[in-house]
Amino acid sequence: MIKNDLLIKAAKMQKTERTPIWIMRQAGRYLPEYRKIREKADFLTMIKTPELATEVTIQPVDIIGVDAAIIFSDILVIPEAMGFEYSMQEKVGPKFKTPIVSANQIRKIEIPDVREKLNYVFEAVKMTKSQLNGKVPLIGFSGSPWTLLTYLIEGGSSKNFGKTKKFILNERKAAHQLLEKISLTIIEYLSIKIESGIDIYQIFDSWGGVLSKSHYLEFSLKYIDLIISELKKRYNIPSIIFSKGVFNSLEEMSETQANVISLDWTIPIDFAKKVTNNKKSLQGNLDPTILYANETEIAKEAEKVLAEFGNGNGHIFNLGHGILPDIEPSKLKFLVDYVKSESRKYHE
Amino acid sequence: MIKNDLLIKAAKMQKTERTPIWIMRQAGRYLPEYRKIREKADFLTMIKTPELATEVTIQPVDIIGVDAAIIFSDILVIPEAMGFEYSMQEKVGPKFKTPIVSANQIRKIEIPDVREKLNYVFEAVKMTKSQLNGKVPLIGFSGSPWTLLTYLIEGGSSKNFGKTKKFILNERKAAHQLLEKISLTIIEYLSIKIESGIDIYQIFDSWGGVLSKSHYLEFSLKYIDLIISELKKRYNIPSIIFSKGVFNSLEEMSETQANVISLDWTIPIDFAKKVTNNKKSLQGNLDPTILYANETEIAKEAEKVLAEFGNGNGHIFNLGHGILPDIEPSKLKFLVDYVKSESRKYHE
Repeated sequence: MIKNDLLIKAAKMQKTERTPIWIMRQAGRYLPEYRKIREKADFLTMIKTPELATEVTIQPVDIIGVDAAIIFSDILVIPEAMGFEYSMQEKVGPKFKTPIVSANQIRKIEIPDVREKLNYVFEAVKMTKSQLNGKVPLIGFSGSPWTLLTYLIEGGSSKNFGKTKKFILNERKAAHQLLEKISLTIIEYLSIKIESGIDIYQIFDSWGGVLSKSHYLEFSLKYIDLIISELKKRYNIPSIIFSKGVFNSLEEMSETQANVISLDWTIPIDFAKKVTNNKKSLQGNLDPTILYANETEIAKEAEKVLAEFGNGNGHIFNLGHGILPDIEPSKLKFLVDYVKSESRKYHE
Repeated sequence: MIKNDLLIKAAKMQKTERTPIWIMRQAGRYLPEYRKIREKADFLTMIKTPELATEVTIQPVDIIGVDAAIIFSDILVIPEAMGFEYSMQEKVGPKFKTPIVSANQIRKIEIPDVREKLNYVFEAVKMTKSQLNGKVPLIGFSGSPWTLLTYLIEGGSSKNFGKTKKFILNERKAAHQLLEKISLTIIEYLSIKIESGIDIYQIFDSWGGVLSKSHYLEFSLKYIDLIISELKKRYNIPSIIFSKGVFNSLEEMSETQANVISLDWTIPIDFAKKVTNNKKSLQGNLDPTILYANETEIAKEAEKVLAEFGNGNGHIFNLGHGILPDIEPSKLKFLVDYVKSESRKYHE
């Protein structure tokens, strides 16, 4: 039913004729077509208006030619559905009105009815799916429970996550209770997203890398695993884990039921292949800032990534993190075209 | 001549009766005695006034009982000596008046006469050395050329180092010229610091971790290696490399002439031991936020670090990064006392 199903096949380590490519934040500010919409509507309005979310989700498929669409949304819709309102402040990022400071607040949190509260996301998924008309797969996503917990406790972004670390060390039980409540909410959220039409999903664990290995396993991977295992029981679609900066637990990630492990640019692919014992598909990992360079340099670095993965299936080309807002779209188009043509030799 | 020379011995992998401990940013805001001085003088005045720098350098030796003093200074004195003025802005950090935006600016940079320009640092070293009177070793330090380059190009701290990456990709030759000029300046700077009395030095490469492996080797480690090799020819004192977040090149670090590799809290010690093939002493790597926990938890985590290193010499206890400003001094004192007594069993 999907015409270009390279991403799904690569996620399942099946044979493809070339390496699929999509880009984190591909629906974003670097595109003039996106900025035009963003001029008329603020970020939160865009994610809450299915027509606008659909439009920007499809833009990079049409303009850049990526092999997948990823639904335009925000990881913080989950905390919001759980009763924590936030706003987006220009150049500062998200700000929560009432951050979590006590175990008592956590006890009072009820698992929300996401079907009702996040209906706008599911509507956007359905609308996008219908407009894509099977052209490429649609990716859904969620933040990881750990990453969402940090926003709830810090009240926004953070430099050293002092408040969060203090909280998990001194209120360990409550922290786990919060992670569990977030996980249960995410399971329902992704379930309905899957039923609404997404073909694969990614868990964004943006802040897993601020933890030591033992804390990462205890506070982050455990809950990612819980979500993925539960969804595997319910549905048959592949999943991707992206724990940025977490080189130290790639082996443990490869023991979960996730299909794909996404790598930032600091993790060499050969290292990841060895540690994960070729059990999982790998995604990534070009340094996003390489797109500041000229085309010769971009080609050289893209080739390096392809060569490091080498012959065989189970590689999804992507950047090691989101595309930066001041990248020229033509550079990304060049990268996408390069990967589409030059990856063929590794799949013969 | 140094009464407590545990740090020097451990750096050289010699036998010690226990594991030495010092703490990054041990002369810092968490100490009320430091804050008292800081109330009367701003940061830059403190580092430029040898009496004040000496006083805060010695405070943690007397109050906390660490096994080394580290001269109170700033990594940005090097760019300043090279003609780039900066100020310290509360809650923002350093700001350079004229950041580097072109290759032309780099061509014009002359290697400064550091003996004259940074005389205040050398005076502080001599004064501290005299007041320490051989109690513990004195650590000197420098920023890495790469880390200093990022400040010069970004004009301060950065989130994604976009300007820097753009510059090194598009002005590669000029970037290397800048790194070389910084390296030559650092070599002279550390030479005079050594002649003024420091017993060991650490290269702080705070931003090496934002690079992919190949860029780290090309733009950061190469120049750290240059500095350490040159200083090894001139002097016989040990050296420490701390490239935060750089797990991917520990092997290459272990092939330099550095004596010690310092680990942040995300790098498991057993991984580092394996990759460096036990060729180097290791420093670190307790998560600095563990000091937010209670004493039972601190003891447990400290024991874990000691046990991971295991029996034998060549371990220097430290945090994986600087101590945070809101840590209670009594917690640090507890950690230091714990390591002093409980590490003995690993040295029998």
